Amino acid sequence: MTADVVVTGGGVIGTAIAWRAAAAGLDVVIVDPECGDAASLVAAGMLAPVSESLFGEDALLRLNLLAVQRFPAFAAQLEEATGHDVGLRREGTLAVACDPGDHAALMRLTAFRRSVGLDADELDGRACRNLEPFLAPDVCGGVLFAGDWSVDNRRYAAALRQAMRAAGVRAVRDRVVGVRSRDGRACGVRLSDGSAIGTVDCTFVVVAAGCWSGGVAGLPAALRAVVRPVKGQLLRLRLPGGMPPVISHTVRATVRGAEVYVVPRADGEMIVGATSEERGPDRTVTAGAVHDLLRDAMSVLPVMSELILAEACAGLRPGTPDNGPVVGTTGLDGLLVATGHYRNGILLSPVTADAAVACLTGQQPAEEWEPFSPQRFTARVRA
Amino acid sequence: MTADVVVTGGGVIGTAIAWRAAAAGLDVVIVDPECGDAASLVAAGMLAPVSESLFGEDALLRLNLLAVQRFPAFAAQLEEATGHDVGLRREGTLAVACDPGDHAALMRLTAFRRSVGLDADELDGRACRNLEPFLAPDVCGGVLFAGDWSVDNRRYAAALRQAMRAAGVRAVRDRVVGVRSRDGRACGVRLSDGSAIGTVDCTFVVVAAGCWSGGVAGLPAALRAVVRPVKGQLLRLRLPGGMPPVISHTVRATVRGAEVYVVPRADGEMIVGATSEERGPDRTVTAGAVHDLLRDAMSVLPVMSELILAEACAGLRPGTPDNGPVVGTTGLDGLLVATGHYRNGILLSPVTADAAVACLTGQQPAEEWEPFSPQRFTARVRA
Repeated sequence: MTADVVVTGGGVIGTAIAWRAAAAGLDVVIVDPECGDAASLVAAGMLAPVSESLFGEDALLRLNLLAVQRFPAFAAQLEEATGHDVGLRREGTLAVACDPGDHAALMRLTAFRRSVGLDADELDGRACRNLEPFLAPDVCGGVLFAGDWSVDNRRYAAALRQAMRAAGVRAVRDRVVGVRSRDGRACGVRLSDGSAIGTVDCTFVVVAAGCWSGGVAGLPAALRAVVRPVKGQLLRLRLPGGMPPVISHTVRATVRGAEVYVVPRADGEMIVGATSEERGPDRTVTAGAVHDLLRDAMSVLPVMSELILAEACAGLRPGTPDNGPVVGTTGLDGLLVATGHYRNGILLSPVTADAAVACLTGQQPAEEWEPFSPQRFTARVRA
Repeated sequence: MTADVVVTGGGVIGTAIAWRAAAAGLDVVIVDPECGDAASLVAAGMLAPVSESLFGEDALLRLNLLAVQRFPAFAAQLEEATGHDVGLRREGTLAVACDPGDHAALMRLTAFRRSVGLDADELDGRACRNLEPFLAPDVCGGVLFAGDWSVDNRRYAAALRQAMRAAGVRAVRDRVVGVRSRDGRACGVRLSDGSAIGTVDCTFVVVAAGCWSGGVAGLPAALRAVVRPVKGQLLRLRLPGGMPPVISHTVRATVRGAEVYVVPRADGEMIVGATSEERGPDRTVTAGAVHDLLRDAMSVLPVMSELILAEACAGLRPGTPDNGPVVGTTGLDGLLVATGHYRNGILLSPVTADAAVACLTGQQPAEEWEPFSPQRFTARVRA
């Protein structure tokens, strides 16, 4: 089998790249053992350019802002291509605080967000409860971030797969174990079943295998070590029969220093997330994480105790040393990487596809991508 | 189809009766839509004759004491019949307290248990931790109930089904909607698919359908109203790979007035239970129940936060107005009931099978059963 482009990894990053590459006229094969990657499904789908971790990460903030601007048009194109609603919600995010310390932290975040031009409306406790009547009585204030949206990550991932297939991408259910090269240029991949897929002259292999990207032999050694799995556990809750939706905005809070968020879906489902754990490739659901997520969510929205706990799951985010993604050309001609999206994989998937397609078609990615080139890790090792 | 005995309900009560009736030489058919009833599988399998609810319920206590004495021989016979270990654990139960109020309540329970001849060894906090090193540091004391054992309810239920089939019982996967009668005597059952199963002359229909027993038309009206579903939610936790078992005894505690227990299995699995909720036939798993069970269990055994939450499930116990089972003959000749076992279904299953087989073969059940005859409800209505 040959193709213009071989994409390894069938999460939202890989499928978005495959879809847009095929739409650009390239012949694309995507390879994934599960055809639908775990980290993409274990996500809340928040489209929030700023999080607590972003103080001081200016380059990543600029990229996230680009990604938020890009998302609606990309989602609309995807919905048009597939006829499926991906569950984009524009109600905004209500961040609340229950005590003076949490409130002070929220005000610092709000000032930071305003400094980068993002909307933020301060609300007292009563105004918060006007927006979300089920908030706990001890919510003393909050801020509405009108531009922090969400998407139903499972609908979004499914639509991407459908659009990709409709665009002619061929899917291979296997695992890429290595990149093949000839004369200093990537020329295909080896699969775990011993077979190979070749690339046609002057085209590309794209490694987009999330936290597993380091497992692809033939990737430069410095890149193989860059991505690590960061475990995240989250819950899916459903409404009992007959209960109307509990919230309309994404609700987030810092509860005794721990971040918790509750993201509503159109069907009343709510996602509660998420832990962030350095445990290697462990995907077990633990009693402590489920307890803490429920405790924190119920402290902000007590009514959640009455909801159905439909699912508890764990995924592995691809983390990097500087929390930024790794997207672009590598030391090996014809080999691209698009990984390391950490907590922002859903948000960054449209702009990552744009950047990858630019590389594949001989154009420059948007300048916001410059700090996130793979060279920042390979160059450091050479020095 | 005809049989000597038709048993409706394939939980541990129905299968135990079917097995022993077949072993007594009767031709038995058992009817259950799921062939393995929910309440039997959503159980911890504690074999504890005394619980908080038993103060003042002397007749039920005598029955439970008979049941505990009977259990080991019955389990041994079952293991011999099937070749399968049912996971009977004789390590005993360690009841602990974390504050003076809980400790005082435990001392009252201990005095009551001793008054009926049960072993109870008082231990200080240090002695408790000698038995179970993972107990929380604030456990201030406890009592070892050496005679409170446990059985792996899922292994036990599976063994009963196997023994029953090996003894020649025929299983029909359907739901009994009514009892048929002729000349004032039960003569068979109607199934939901419209077919019927008849009983041979002078033999029996046994309604052992747990909380669904009231749905069987033809049962005397007073009995149909007696059993109600009492929802119980519990959790199954597993050890992460390489972690040795956390506890060897069943550990129970009253935490701020709420009862919680943790029952270990041979493979390291632990059952945490259980809620007791009056919600009709609702079997959803709720966020609040999972949270509270985890919180209470972790307050006694903090290490449980590291365990894998393998399952959260809900079952419907068949509750009765006096918390006692309803076992024996009814106003209709040839019709027996064996239901209402509430929280003691696993414990009472051997003695219930004994009582039912006595009725089926023209003998008297043990005298401990006398207060639990169906007549206590039908007579009351007549008066």
